[in-house]
Amino acid sequence: MTDSSLQPAGPVTDDAQRARPVDPARGTRRGLALDQISLDPGFWKTLQDANSAGTLRHCIEWMERLGWLANFDRVAAGTMDHNRPGWQFSDSEVYKLLEALTWEYGRTGDAEVDAIFESLVDRVAAAEDEDGYLNTYFGHPGRPERYSDFSMGHELYCAGHLLQAAVARMRTKGEDRFVALGRRVADHVLREFGPEGRNGVCGHPEIEVALAEFARATGDTRYRDQARLFIDRRGHGTLTPVPLLGPAYFQDEIPVRDTESWHGHAVRALYLAAGAVDIAVDAEDSALLNVLEEQWHHTVARRTYLTGGMGSRHQDEGFGEDWELPPDRAYCETCAGVGSLMVSWRLYLATGRVEYVDLMERTLFNVIATSPSPDGTAFFYANPLQQRVEGSDVLPDAVNSRAEGGVRAPWFDVSCCPTNLARTLASWQSYSASVEAENLAVLLQYTAGEFDFPLRNGLLRLHVSTDYPNASDIALSVSEAPREGAALRLRIPSWANGASVSVNGGPADPVTPGWCDLPEPVFEGEEIRLVLPTEPRLTWPDPRIDAMRGTVAVERGPLVLCVESRDLPEGISLESVALDVSVSPSPDGDGARARAKSVKTPAQARGALPFGGVPADQEMSEEFDLILVPYHRWAERGPSTMRVFVPVAVDPISKSPSGPILEGRSDER
Amino acid sequence: MTDSSLQPAGPVTDDAQRARPVDPARGTRRGLALDQISLDPGFWKTLQDANSAGTLRHCIEWMERLGWLANFDRVAAGTMDHNRPGWQFSDSEVYKLLEALTWEYGRTGDAEVDAIFESLVDRVAAAEDEDGYLNTYFGHPGRPERYSDFSMGHELYCAGHLLQAAVARMRTKGEDRFVALGRRVADHVLREFGPEGRNGVCGHPEIEVALAEFARATGDTRYRDQARLFIDRRGHGTLTPVPLLGPAYFQDEIPVRDTESWHGHAVRALYLAAGAVDIAVDAEDSALLNVLEEQWHHTVARRTYLTGGMGSRHQDEGFGEDWELPPDRAYCETCAGVGSLMVSWRLYLATGRVEYVDLMERTLFNVIATSPSPDGTAFFYANPLQQRVEGSDVLPDAVNSRAEGGVRAPWFDVSCCPTNLARTLASWQSYSASVEAENLAVLLQYTAGEFDFPLRNGLLRLHVSTDYPNASDIALSVSEAPREGAALRLRIPSWANGASVSVNGGPADPVTPGWCDLPEPVFEGEEIRLVLPTEPRLTWPDPRIDAMRGTVAVERGPLVLCVESRDLPEGISLESVALDVSVSPSPDGDGARARAKSVKTPAQARGALPFGGVPADQEMSEEFDLILVPYHRWAERGPSTMRVFVPVAVDPISKSPSGPILEGRSDER
Repeated sequence: MTDSSLQPAGPVTDDAQRARPVDPARGTRRGLALDQISLDPGFWKTLQDANSAGTLRHCIEWMERLGWLANFDRVAAGTMDHNRPGWQFSDSEVYKLLEALTWEYGRTGDAEVDAIFESLVDRVAAAEDEDGYLNTYFGHPGRPERYSDFSMGHELYCAGHLLQAAVARMRTKGEDRFVALGRRVADHVLREFGPEGRNGVCGHPEIEVALAEFARATGDTRYRDQARLFIDRRGHGTLTPVPLLGPAYFQDEIPVRDTESWHGHAVRALYLAAGAVDIAVDAEDSALLNVLEEQWHHTVARRTYLTGGMGSRHQDEGFGEDWELPPDRAYCETCAGVGSLMVSWRLYLATGRVEYVDLMERTLFNVIATSPSPDGTAFFYANPLQQRVEGSDVLPDAVNSRAEGGVRAPWFDVSCCPTNLARTLASWQSYSASVEAENLAVLLQYTAGEFDFPLRNGLLRLHVSTDYPNASDIALSVSEAPREGAALRLRIPSWANGASVSVNGGPADPVTPGWCDLPEPVFEGEEIRLVLPTEPRLTWPDPRIDAMRGTVAVERGPLVLCVESRDLPEGISLESVALDVSVSPSPDGDGARARAKSVKTPAQARGALPFGGVPADQEMSEEFDLILVPYHRWAERGPSTMRVFVPVAVDPISKSPSGPILEGRSDER
Repeated sequence: MTDSSLQPAGPVTDDAQRARPVDPARGTRRGLALDQISLDPGFWKTLQDANSAGTLRHCIEWMERLGWLANFDRVAAGTMDHNRPGWQFSDSEVYKLLEALTWEYGRTGDAEVDAIFESLVDRVAAAEDEDGYLNTYFGHPGRPERYSDFSMGHELYCAGHLLQAAVARMRTKGEDRFVALGRRVADHVLREFGPEGRNGVCGHPEIEVALAEFARATGDTRYRDQARLFIDRRGHGTLTPVPLLGPAYFQDEIPVRDTESWHGHAVRALYLAAGAVDIAVDAEDSALLNVLEEQWHHTVARRTYLTGGMGSRHQDEGFGEDWELPPDRAYCETCAGVGSLMVSWRLYLATGRVEYVDLMERTLFNVIATSPSPDGTAFFYANPLQQRVEGSDVLPDAVNSRAEGGVRAPWFDVSCCPTNLARTLASWQSYSASVEAENLAVLLQYTAGEFDFPLRNGLLRLHVSTDYPNASDIALSVSEAPREGAALRLRIPSWANGASVSVNGGPADPVTPGWCDLPEPVFEGEEIRLVLPTEPRLTWPDPRIDAMRGTVAVERGPLVLCVESRDLPEGISLESVALDVSVSPSPDGDGARARAKSVKTPAQARGALPFGGVPADQEMSEEFDLILVPYHRWAERGPSTMRVFVPVAVDPISKSPSGPILEGRSDER
């Protein structure tokens, strides 16, 4: 599966397995390769199986149906004209699917998947121009000229996705005609946009992160230099602003190095940041890396939802100001979740800091897992934290708008999310474990399966048994280890107060959130038991988040929970529900559900306007048990209203949200 | 000033003065005409003077500079081509300005204003096609075909604004060449879109309300029938939806008669409703009128801001769902304020209900008065209730985007608001008083000036002296009255608890919000004193408004107040301010300001995300006096952050927003 002719990319050279999306040219941390982890039945295998069985074919069918694939055939046949279906970036969906297919093949070795990949490459490759330019929207008779619209043309964005697919191919099957096509496309970009070429950047970042990884995969640093050039060119207002959105929409009003917080279109900002991390790492630019870490911390602390979702605004699919986090109009695009994983993973590999992996877990369980339907053929594009009006029951078998409220759709007018999910889930393993300095095995995400850590002194094979996140127990058994044992590091999630670790049936030693290095090396036959308490817990918003004032959320383990109207007692509407926080929420039947004490608050009679001379009367009129269910599966049982942040009931006696939870500050972390 | 050859429009026939925008063909209520009211120095005269001296010329200068006026010259000269400046609706700005100019002339008789009007008509009229079609965007060589884009073409929208200007001309100067042009344009619309014509409606309603009033002004009911046809055609999905926005954007997914609440693009929804009220009244369609009253009540009770502002979303400039009223992303377009006035005024004339006039006062003081700068040459397009980040100090002398945060702009890419303000302020008088059944004088808005009520038995002339809303006292003196006296009705605003009326220095009789009919007729020489208490008061949001939970606003009289960062003590930022509601706010110096007790709440230290395991610590760290200033003048002293709804401080002892204000519910209205 690995082509031995590939050049080593950096100082870590002894790991021959290359099937991973990110492989920095410098540094001592490396993710496991796809075939070094096999999943057992559990949360992530269910999602990955739905991706294999459902999403991959679903995407091909839709792109065939809409003519996005046929666009390549028409260019090859010279019949492309002014009437071309799909947006200017529809080629990129084909490339993201190619990337997904080749990771899928790399993970499974499934010859049928490989054959599908090759049949798509037949069509894509036939549309290549002689000079390596490849785009079905621009540069053909009846079509706009090449590079005539840097702001919205997405030509380099499309090229970037092709290069990411080529990297995946190189690392799963080795050099082939598709990789060669990628080289020609990349070389064309270098000729057109090099230091002596056009002084342009693409309105949608992507080429930067793609070229950086292409440099790593090929060992050719010219590609990295070009990525760096694109990053340095950006932020100087060379792009023609889009009406109403301005240059901040595509991060062209300020250079990356001078940026305090991510802003503008969320996916654009995150793809750009991912590429900048790659450059900072490979070029040993620690000043740039520091700036990017600061951006992450500023953005995560002030512009990120409890789900890990990013993007507060529909208008520009963008970040809002600090503290602007409306639950109802949260955009939290699925693709921004993918972008966030891309950045956090790169920052983890660069620094080894645990908070990046914590955010990845949150985003995986509450954004990535939320989007697809169980069969992988319908998707949320936006992932709001509140739904005021019931969505449709079933959407038509048609192209939908991006943000149909409350129901997953089979396909979208702009359909970036299905293929982005596909490539992410096909390569899920690559984000779950790593090796540090060739001698430390690091387990990052918990799921049932087998992990092969290639350490300097030999293989550490860990078998993980768990029903996490539905259960607290995670059992690790060492089925193979180097003779002198192996160092093992476990991630204790930031929410896991009261976690413990025991070795070989010994006492359960309390561990605190962060990294937990086992005090002794592990040996073959040993058993380690990690317990991550998944009791339901209340989570409070920062008081500066205006749109969440007076509310609280309930979480269990890594799962954000929500209230869906279909779980409410007959006759009670979600808009009159308040949570009584004087009673702690408790687990409910299914391991991922919770039950809390709730009250119905009466609606207020007001004048003509919804404002009055006295505050809301919050007397509790009816007490009942509130069922909370995992957010990632909301709207799956049919139309419902939903909210993650529930208003806090005010005690009618003291008029305050009192009780042990409020007074007891000892659990502050 | 009035052409006596005009046909009477309905049963009310004895009022020869016709200079008013709305004159229903049926019913017993009629607004005063423009020349029946003259304003003395005061709040509204200041705004009207700035409109006269600043805005009218400013709009002409900008439309000249951008070529929007020259578009007419180019069509006339046959030189229009593919390269035409301005959006497809830029002609409408010229027509709204014509309407403003002719109201201005009708009010003032200023010959210079009339000359400007005529000079613009020279240019507009020259662009008319032979068949009465008049549009500079469509139907010329190199331009799109006529009626080739109903969804976004705005052709009938532009025609509607021309007809509204023609109505204003008819009622201020009488039949002339511009009115004749209007007739040709209207007749063209009838030929093209009559029962046997194209089955189309305009993506932006306006032609309906314009044709309805044109029918009233001309006495020709064919125009009314056409308006009715447009209204009945709408809501059946004939318009091609705009990507992402869908048919609800232009109210084409459900007929007006079946609509529960205003939705979609706010200005579109309101213009459509205004036309529908006209049709319901003139055609005696009481079922339709009931539906429109229900729509008003539903929308005002659940989708309207404290300022009277409408529109919660930037993406579609539209209404949100019920209770979706974010202060920070409130759109509250100035033009939606104009549209709201149009609907409420028509509903008042149709029903005589006071709540419509109450909302108009709120909208006039807090949306209409907010938009223009003191000199009338810069404007807010959107009117949010919270500004998180300081705006620019001064904007460039350039076309700006619609929603530059926190600073008024001289002109916009889509520049509908300046001309809409111009026509509204030029005819402000017409909304301030009315006569009912020819024998009852009704004073609706309070401002210093002289009001001539033409009653059946003679003239009632009322002189009003007041510094309202900066002062509570309103002195009315009767300088002329019919011999047998006149019946007088006063509006007591919904917020005015503790109001009183005294006649001729007699005792102050308490009056309650609603209509106050003086118990005896008024006679020449009498003096009436109305006191509307303008003590600062707290106003609380409905608990279902998630984005305002835990906050309170302060109002004084009809004015919504706000906190601006420049009034905070040194070193305190607006995001850490909370209001101590155990102390009532008090007046502060200037009659329109208030002072309240406030505290600084410490920022919370959290983890990586802005969420934590304990609720916000709201201990008060520092007490200070909070200055509140009128919202309508915010951002005038330079860059600031601002908020109308201020978080309520929680008492550190009881942890509750306790105190007399919370406990005392006796002031509920």
